[in-house]
Amino acid sequence: MIYPDSLEKAITYFKKLPGVGEKSAERMALSILDMDDEVVQELSESILLCKNKLKKCKICASLTENEICDVCSKADNGYRNKNIICVLEDPKSVFAFERAGKFEGTYHILNGLISPIDGIGPDDINLSSLVQRVKELKNPEIIIALKSTIEGEATTLYIKKIFENNNVIVSRLSYGIPMGVEIDYLDEQTLFNALNDRKNLS
Amino acid sequence: MIYPDSLEKAITYFKKLPGVGEKSAERMALSILDMDDEVVQELSESILLCKNKLKKCKICASLTENEICDVCSKADNGYRNKNIICVLEDPKSVFAFERAGKFEGTYHILNGLISPIDGIGPDDINLSSLVQRVKELKNPEIIIALKSTIEGEATTLYIKKIFENNNVIVSRLSYGIPMGVEIDYLDEQTLFNALNDRKNLS
Repeated sequence: MIYPDSLEKAITYFKKLPGVGEKSAERMALSILDMDDEVVQELSESILLCKNKLKKCKICASLTENEICDVCSKADNGYRNKNIICVLEDPKSVFAFERAGKFEGTYHILNGLISPIDGIGPDDINLSSLVQRVKELKNPEIIIALKSTIEGEATTLYIKKIFENNNVIVSRLSYGIPMGVEIDYLDEQTLFNALNDRKNLS
Repeated sequence: MIYPDSLEKAITYFKKLPGVGEKSAERMALSILDMDDEVVQELSESILLCKNKLKKCKICASLTENEICDVCSKADNGYRNKNIICVLEDPKSVFAFERAGKFEGTYHILNGLISPIDGIGPDDINLSSLVQRVKELKNPEIIIALKSTIEGEATTLYIKKIFENNNVIVSRLSYGIPMGVEIDYLDEQTLFNALNDRKNLS
């Protein structure tokens, strides 16, 4: 036994966090000793709170502490556009969109992507409730914002098919070169996508 | 407010851990949601335990849950060599030595290094108790294992001076090239130290 029990335990559990290896876990556990009692208490508590308070929004499946998330209840009250639904893979993407702060519609979280190789079909992700939501809207518009991988594109195409001939505008985010990246650093697929999605300047 | 309150709080407190930025904190907080209840409970608890149970060993100032640490009590019972004291900067170094598993003596943790620039003098680190410990030993040997920085070397020299003319064997770890590193990647000081500490092969 190299570590005292309580240190060993903290290291073991810190290692369960994503991206934390043995060395970082040791550093984190030791840093606890130098923190104020209050901070340690709050850190410990916040972990429990996160697990116990957060649930999925009944409408869009985004994370919330209430029945309905902030964005959806704003939409209910007319402060956001209910008719535009941005389809996302996970709640993290909602935070990214909200940080950007330009989007005025609502979200719909799939919590997964269609992936036949992994045995994940359309019924395994949060799609049926999207169909339900769209049915209740006038002039609905769906913006699909999934990553440009095989799974992301398969899911995008599937959603497009569902709403074909339904008077629903369906678009996806453009693929292309990210801001500030040197062209010669881009992979072939990104370059190819950027070429295909090129924008006419005239 | 981009995040629900409890998520925001967890992210805020995860960011207080060393090496954790906004993105990693978000990832960590979200990972809590996918963990089993039990694991979350234990993680939360282990943080409190760490803070509340760990204290400094009365003899060497290493971390322990008892009055006296494992190493020191083994030495008291004759299972480790009480007469050899390895002087270290912090408890982390003890764990590194114990992992290596080759050292049979005891430790003494300074919890700091002499650094006139930062106003840290000999009285600000855990030195007087080392003098006390050494006084009670027969044929004491001190091995100084501090990093090779200005502060480390200043502290090493200071300790050497204290025990001069006291029948105490004082050594320091050799400076040199670390395992597996290409010679041309080494900085000048390391090369110079390795040259100075060179070992005669005959």
